[in-house]
Amino acid sequence: MTAESRESETPQQPRWDEPAIRVLMMPRDTNAHGTIFGGVILSYIDQAGAIEARRQGSRFMVTVSMDKVVFHEPVFVGDLVSFWTETLRIGTSSITVKVTCEAIRGNDLQQKVTVTEAQVVYVNVGEDRKPAPITRIANALSG
Amino acid sequence: MTAESRESETPQQPRWDEPAIRVLMMPRDTNAHGTIFGGVILSYIDQAGAIEARRQGSRFMVTVSMDKVVFHEPVFVGDLVSFWTETLRIGTSSITVKVTCEAIRGNDLQQKVTVTEAQVVYVNVGEDRKPAPITRIANALSG
Amino acid sequence: MTAESRESETPQQPRWDEPAIRVLMMPRDTNAHGTIFGGVILSYIDQAGAIEARRQGSRFMVTVSMDKVVFHEPVFVGDLVSFWTETLRIGTSSITVKVTCEAIRGNDLQQKVTVTEAQVVYVNVGEDRKPAPITRIANALSG
Amino acid sequence: MTAESRESETPQQPRWDEPAIRVLMMPRDTNAHGTIFGGVILSYIDQAGAIEARRQGSRFMVTVSMDKVVFHEPVFVGDLVSFWTETLRIGTSSITVKVTCEAIRGNDLQQKVTVTEAQVVYVNVGEDRKPAPITRIANALSG
Amino acid sequence: MTAESRESETPQQPRWDEPAIRVLMMPRDTNAHGTIFGGVILSYIDQAGAIEARRQGSRFMVTVSMDKVVFHEPVFVGDLVSFWTETLRIGTSSITVKVTCEAIRGNDLQQKVTVTEAQVVYVNVGEDRKPAPITRIANALSG
Amino acid sequence: MTAESRESETPQQPRWDEPAIRVLMMPRDTNAHGTIFGGVILSYIDQAGAIEARRQGSRFMVTVSMDKVVFHEPVFVGDLVSFWTETLRIGTSSITVKVTCEAIRGNDLQQKVTVTEAQVVYVNVGEDRKPAPITRIANALSG
Repeated sequence: MTAESRESETPQQPRWDEPAIRVLMMPRDTNAHGTIFGGVILSYIDQAGAIEARRQGSRFMVTVSMDKVVFHEPVFVGDLVSFWTETLRIGTSSITVKVTCEAIRGNDLQQKVTVTEAQVVYVNVGEDRKPAPITRIANALSG
Repeated sequence: MTAESRESETPQQPRWDEPAIRVLMMPRDTNAHGTIFGGVILSYIDQAGAIEARRQGSRFMVTVSMDKVVFHEPVFVGDLVSFWTETLRIGTSSITVKVTCEAIRGNDLQQKVTVTEAQVVYVNVGEDRKPAPITRIANALSG
Repeated sequence: MTAESRESETPQQPRWDEPAIRVLMMPRDTNAHGTIFGGVILSYIDQAGAIEARRQGSRFMVTVSMDKVVFHEPVFVGDLVSFWTETLRIGTSSITVKVTCEAIRGNDLQQKVTVTEAQVVYVNVGEDRKPAPITRIANALSG
Repeated sequence: MTAESRESETPQQPRWDEPAIRVLMMPRDTNAHGTIFGGVILSYIDQAGAIEARRQGSRFMVTVSMDKVVFHEPVFVGDLVSFWTETLRIGTSSITVKVTCEAIRGNDLQQKVTVTEAQVVYVNVGEDRKPAPITRIANALSG
Repeated sequence: MTAESRESETPQQPRWDEPAIRVLMMPRDTNAHGTIFGGVILSYIDQAGAIEARRQGSRFMVTVSMDKVVFHEPVFVGDLVSFWTETLRIGTSSITVKVTCEAIRGNDLQQKVTVTEAQVVYVNVGEDRKPAPITRIANALSG
Repeated sequence: MTAESRESETPQQPRWDEPAIRVLMMPRDTNAHGTIFGGVILSYIDQAGAIEARRQGSRFMVTVSMDKVVFHEPVFVGDLVSFWTETLRIGTSSITVKVTCEAIRGNDLQQKVTVTEAQVVYVNVGEDRKPAPITRIANALSG
């Protein structure tokens, strides 16, 4: 895809030092096993990646694909889950974001566990929903 | 992983002739653009794959990974979305499922669109949450 | 009501061989007893009947009444519930649909149970929200 | 059913002078037409009837059936909807409740509209989930 | 603020003899401790106060502040919670409402407990979202 | 209350350099005006303060009261809202937390707005739900 010709492997902007999203897990988020439903985690991953894409200059993002989603550990009610993002690649109109989900267990605040990881690709689109160039912004969003 | 040594590329059981899940999309499922939030679709994909895994004999499934998630087309309020599943591989304790999401548009019932696709891997676990062999069931679940 | 003069007791279109809706029951759907809240089942019945009405040619449906709702058996977290529909009567502007809810128990896939039944009447309305004739469609929706 | 032999057509307790449930309708409760989804109304009807049954002495109620559900008028976002209940019949172990839903429109407080009506039957069950006699309570619950 | 010069300490309209809102607490409303999440109670308090403000003549209310929120007792699944309101002060464009939350315990209908209290201030705004005078209505809303 | 005798006006632990909670606002969070429902903001404030209390050594927190809740500006769909926390006072068994909600507008990332502020008091309780001393933890939670 020629739209990707401007792609750069080294993003111009550093990893945020704050999570894109951070949420407390509640009983309504559970599956039949009593742990947090994977779909809830995936929903926040999609949002977190979109926030990272927005930060890089995307105005109207559409999620195009997801890959390498790995569920390392279960998430529990009472866990505080942070969704950290990192831009892996920026093309003319698309952005690839890595999202790392880290849980602080409700019953042991010293315990930080990487529970899930994923890579998400977003495309910036115009009003006609067709791919549109991303306008890179000069200053990183500080949070 | 030796647990996968019994793996077979050709699943013993045919594709269901009914969707694993089928839902009507509602306003509460939308994102800021007014289309259906990707996280809602991903949640149903996770459930649909788990239903397929259960059908193949898994008793207590844990979602391990997701790959090749592609969002082909947006989904709209009023769409009826079917989540079709197909078992790609069955190992000793894990199952790889392909989920294909097909929308019937609310304003044109003749229009069927493949909106999203994904591959999900589940592991069957025992009471100790460790991988446990899948007991293959003789007859396919008819729906 | 003369609007019903074109009514036919024998619907021109056969029962779908696929459910109108099929969903997995989650902990957030429970009532104080720990079983699935009846309101959740009723919500899906309303949607399922509307999908059947749409299939018969209704464009903009309004739910008019419900009758003979019978809760035969409780529904549990982890159950996969299918909402099967059948058109009982089609009038000039209204449709009567029977919805049958069948659960596959989460802990025993061989066990299929009719959990709930209901009859729902929909009216097709125009932009002014007044009853409008239903345009019968030639081919049944295949799913 | 002989269990109903103690049934009385005239309930011993008067209609509450307060609604069983009263709620404000929100955007998340809408259907694809932008009005309130019928399933939301049905869910509150089920709860309201159960509250009436509880008031009459039922301890652990199961919803058995619903009839004569009529949707008279649409409900809108911003409407305040009251669910009024009335006991129609009390048997040894079952109770029939009429629920009347009345909306105060968000844009005209003087306008009170009966939007929906329904009859719901509940059965009082014991720990074994089998029908158990209802212990009539002496004093009506005042709210 | 001169806008408050018309303020009267004694509201012209009596306390409703019916709750502004009344709801049944469900499992999806719980926090990690298994009791009802405070945020759920706070959400209904905000709605209840707005209903009181509407009743006093406010057309388009914005919540401005909350004070003296006291959580006296926990709320449990199955509790029926009533949100009673009382207008404390009415100014030119703002209204101060007291909300008192009273629970009828699910397992003991005779037990009525004041679980939470709060004071909320609303401002009536015009289409430009700027404070606008409240048009006092002659007759109290009866429910 | 003598339990508060160990109270210190200057908390021993610094303000986090990361938000307690950070979320993206969605259409399902709106009120009848189309802006974000105040109850949604209040729910996250309650969670954010509890996370701060947990960080200070509280194990099983109960929300006791809220004060000085001020809604400065409306919140919109697409806003990214951060809930910053600061411990104001720590007593033997209670903690007072200030929560500041800051929105990054969806359509202008440079625009950071303090939308809401609140003070929340939590009490640490034992298994019997009675106040229990807070065990101060040596190291601040880094996020």
